[in-house]
Amino acid sequence: EIIASVVDFLEQQGAPKPLAGKKAVVTSGPTHEPIDPVRYIANRSSGKQGHAIAEALAQAGADVTLVTGPVTLPDPAGVKVVRIETAREMLGAVQAALPADIAVCAAAVADWRTADEAGQKLKKDGSGVIPDLKLSENPDILATISKSGPMRPGLVIGFAAETENVTDHARAKRARKGCDWILANDVAPATGTFGGDDNEICLISGDDETTDERWERQSKTGVARALRARIIKHFS
Amino acid sequence: EIIASVVDFLEQQGAPKPLAGKKAVVTSGPTHEPIDPVRYIANRSSGKQGHAIAEALAQAGADVTLVTGPVTLPDPAGVKVVRIETAREMLGAVQAALPADIAVCAAAVADWRTADEAGQKLKKDGSGVIPDLKLSENPDILATISKSGPMRPGLVIGFAAETENVTDHARAKRARKGCDWILANDVAPATGTFGGDDNEICLISGDDETTDERWERQSKTGVARALRARIIKHFS
Repeated sequence: EIIASVVDFLEQQGAPKPLAGKKAVVTSGPTHEPIDPVRYIANRSSGKQGHAIAEALAQAGADVTLVTGPVTLPDPAGVKVVRIETAREMLGAVQAALPADIAVCAAAVADWRTADEAGQKLKKDGSGVIPDLKLSENPDILATISKSGPMRPGLVIGFAAETENVTDHARAKRARKGCDWILANDVAPATGTFGGDDNEICLISGDDETTDERWERQSKTGVARALRARIIKHFS
Repeated sequence: EIIASVVDFLEQQGAPKPLAGKKAVVTSGPTHEPIDPVRYIANRSSGKQGHAIAEALAQAGADVTLVTGPVTLPDPAGVKVVRIETAREMLGAVQAALPADIAVCAAAVADWRTADEAGQKLKKDGSGVIPDLKLSENPDILATISKSGPMRPGLVIGFAAETENVTDHARAKRARKGCDWILANDVAPATGTFGGDDNEICLISGDDETTDERWERQSKTGVARALRARIIKHFS
């Protein structure tokens, strides 16, 4: 918060921005996975957190590409916005935005899509036969861009939206995906986080809890500014 | 359209409204069927057509209850709005609004819901095991309220959103559901109807095509006014 305030102060002074020259790609919102021409699988992500992060990084001078699923939010100021629907389209758009110094995967990407999208609307024909929705695994965007190689961003940040054992699941996710940081948050329905305005984050950057940073519950804009401050510290 | 203009004219004159004393229930929008606490099955219905119909009927003096799934539209003026998510909730809200003289089922109700909603978020555990989405049939709102009995509205109107053989499918639907009229429209992706502003309707009220009424392509507000005119004619 102190660093965030300093960033705001420097902005007002027209000083050099701390992320000037850095390129960032941020994903946001849900993906929609079509079942047939009218139906799809969706999730309750509003895009508020990802959009706030994209805007915060742009305010600090980063060159930001925001890859977003269907949301009802306005485009953040000063950001290049790429709109997609499915996880596969999101991966393609993220890869097209590389190389980058910073990648923040805040989108709630569908883990699965329907195995066979129907070309015509599935119909209830009165026979009582109920279709079975076969699923296929979607590409894992966070794991894909976390793989070592010349196109890997220097700092890859993911989210873990969990409904139980939040930090344990998130730490395992960090190891499995190969990203640098995970922002773990509790999205159990009672928290109101999914689609809500607030977020309670634990930043996980190591293999045990000694390096965990537990942030106070705050607005998603507050989380975006706290993350920006942490990113600036990382690069300084 | 002539009758719609007359209705508007009479309104401006403060004359008795043609649907005064009539009670109407209108459904609108998609339903969302939860898969787990964060995922759901949805459809591309915007609610524009149902909301326009609710507003048009209220303008003509009807006492209107609008039962709507999740949409981003403002509430229509002069209408009682009941918000629901799932098909089962929609059926309950419609039944609670009966008896009524007119029922217009414009919502895109999910035919199926997941058979077992998971209490915790389904997780991709790296094992490569892909869950199978078992579906159950949802209650059929149009068929349920079309059943003869003391609570059956005098005029029950459904929609048939089809992507092929539009009027044939719609006529079969009218017979199967037991409703009075079906407004058939083509929602093939190329038409832009789903989520779009225009609609091309064929009103089907009989067992063969001699009584079909094919309306010109027009705005969803135009369709709402044309339907209102047809309803006023029916009751006069």
